[in-house]
Amino acid sequence: MRPHTPCPGARAPGDALPAWASGRPRSGRTPPATALPGGARRSAGGSAATRRAALTLRSVQVGPDHPAPRPGQNGAGPLCPAVPLNSLIPSKGHVMQIAVLLYDRFTTLDAIGPYELLGRAPGVETVFVARRPGPVRGDQGSVALVADAALAEVTAPDIVLVPGGPGSREVMRDEEILDWVRTADAATTWTTSVCTGSHILAAAGLLAGRRATSYWPTLDELVPFGAEPTGERVVFDGKYVTAAGVSSGIDMALHLLARIGGDELAQQMQLLTEYDPQPPYDAGSPDRAPAAVVARVRAGWAETDRTGS
Amino acid sequence: MRPHTPCPGARAPGDALPAWASGRPRSGRTPPATALPGGARRSAGGSAATRRAALTLRSVQVGPDHPAPRPGQNGAGPLCPAVPLNSLIPSKGHVMQIAVLLYDRFTTLDAIGPYELLGRAPGVETVFVARRPGPVRGDQGSVALVADAALAEVTAPDIVLVPGGPGSREVMRDEEILDWVRTADAATTWTTSVCTGSHILAAAGLLAGRRATSYWPTLDELVPFGAEPTGERVVFDGKYVTAAGVSSGIDMALHLLARIGGDELAQQMQLLTEYDPQPPYDAGSPDRAPAAVVARVRAGWAETDRTGS
Repeated sequence: MRPHTPCPGARAPGDALPAWASGRPRSGRTPPATALPGGARRSAGGSAATRRAALTLRSVQVGPDHPAPRPGQNGAGPLCPAVPLNSLIPSKGHVMQIAVLLYDRFTTLDAIGPYELLGRAPGVETVFVARRPGPVRGDQGSVALVADAALAEVTAPDIVLVPGGPGSREVMRDEEILDWVRTADAATTWTTSVCTGSHILAAAGLLAGRRATSYWPTLDELVPFGAEPTGERVVFDGKYVTAAGVSSGIDMALHLLARIGGDELAQQMQLLTEYDPQPPYDAGSPDRAPAAVVARVRAGWAETDRTGS
Repeated sequence: MRPHTPCPGARAPGDALPAWASGRPRSGRTPPATALPGGARRSAGGSAATRRAALTLRSVQVGPDHPAPRPGQNGAGPLCPAVPLNSLIPSKGHVMQIAVLLYDRFTTLDAIGPYELLGRAPGVETVFVARRPGPVRGDQGSVALVADAALAEVTAPDIVLVPGGPGSREVMRDEEILDWVRTADAATTWTTSVCTGSHILAAAGLLAGRRATSYWPTLDELVPFGAEPTGERVVFDGKYVTAAGVSSGIDMALHLLARIGGDELAQQMQLLTEYDPQPPYDAGSPDRAPAAVVARVRAGWAETDRTGS
């Protein structure tokens, strides 16, 4: 058995539950009055109950095969085949809201990887949010994820998760979405990204002077925004947590769960998702993949980036 | 650099493209006349062009933020930020169709993990299929994936991918879906599953006498169907490929890509998705997770399984 790397700031066994689960105010958070995209001003604070009441979940199609969505709070959200996670660590009825941003041509695993682990933690409510509720198609074009809430409906999440994808270039110039990211960030305990999602955080002005990571061929693109790119897989700088390309969001989720609920919570989620990776090659990093593979992928990316298509 | 484990049956550099990409008939495949759920009989064979023509993609909501879905063929399906994968290995215009089955309360990462890698291979077309087209909600309840096709519209996929999830118990008794699995399997080159998706394959009668894997607390449930459960992460037995719990589908995809297109294709997809796992704990397997974590997760599962809720 490999030694467990203790996670700085993790809750030790026997410690009290973290603030979000115990109902204590989160330290350092002062609910600010923030501008909403529509021009309205609203406190970014508010209780979880208020947030739940404000959030109207929508069903695009309802029927025997497509039942109306339940609110995302994890209480009956078992895993394959079914694990009552609320029995693992009591949530005491308080809700930590995770908002996952969707936009056209996002990379689906960037969002689903960390969601699969984070969303199963007790007392967590996840909401997928987009400019408008409804299906948002990923970058391969073969599948859409359904956003249940519009940007304006989610104003004070505890965690924001911004996935990457080729659509991130448009989002970096989209003031409506960038405004939402800033507004949500004013309320968060953790603001997170996977892949080029960090470029969106950077374009929103949130990573200036901070260490951050991104998809490996795009790290330099963080520099003009004042961020300090690193080649690490998961980077914590204050409440900002950025992960490298696509699959790295799963590792980010484990680190984040450890900070939120302690090592044992993270380990439970790792075992629940049977995350015992056994790739048949050591080709997931440009530092160790065969040179021909790195050259092929890098050249393909450069050509696409040059032509913009 | 770790040594690369060569994948049995993988295409060596310089070999001709595999049959599905070169247009040669797939060996051992005789298009059978099979019963469709509605009682109609149709050849399960047919060219890729025929399949494309037969498959009507639907958009649930169309607008500026939700453009009409493009057919899933990967030609403009770049990765974060954008890699023209068809430039990596020429597909010669032939299409290999992957059908991903969705059903109520599936586990989203079971489907999205392997899709993210397999769907990006050149010449691949992915279609998400369910009893009826439209959104199908995952087991956490917080997000739905949109199926673009009904079961009856996808009759001869080259690969079937069946995810697991708590909803698999109902599917194991659902003759309409089981009939579709059998019909599709009659046409496939590879029939695959993640997590308790293998229980669905078993209930369809496809794993009798075969080695297979599943989610770790549920392995024994394969025995009544005549399958031989193993604790391995990815199991190949003929054209049947089963993966263990949830996240294992990513490893399965790499093994499958190696069989389909060779080591270099698999390595390219691994680097594209930056799959260089660095979990902070070694807790993803019941053999190595802390005993208290295993006991907690197993007890939670047993209680849920006992009560059926």
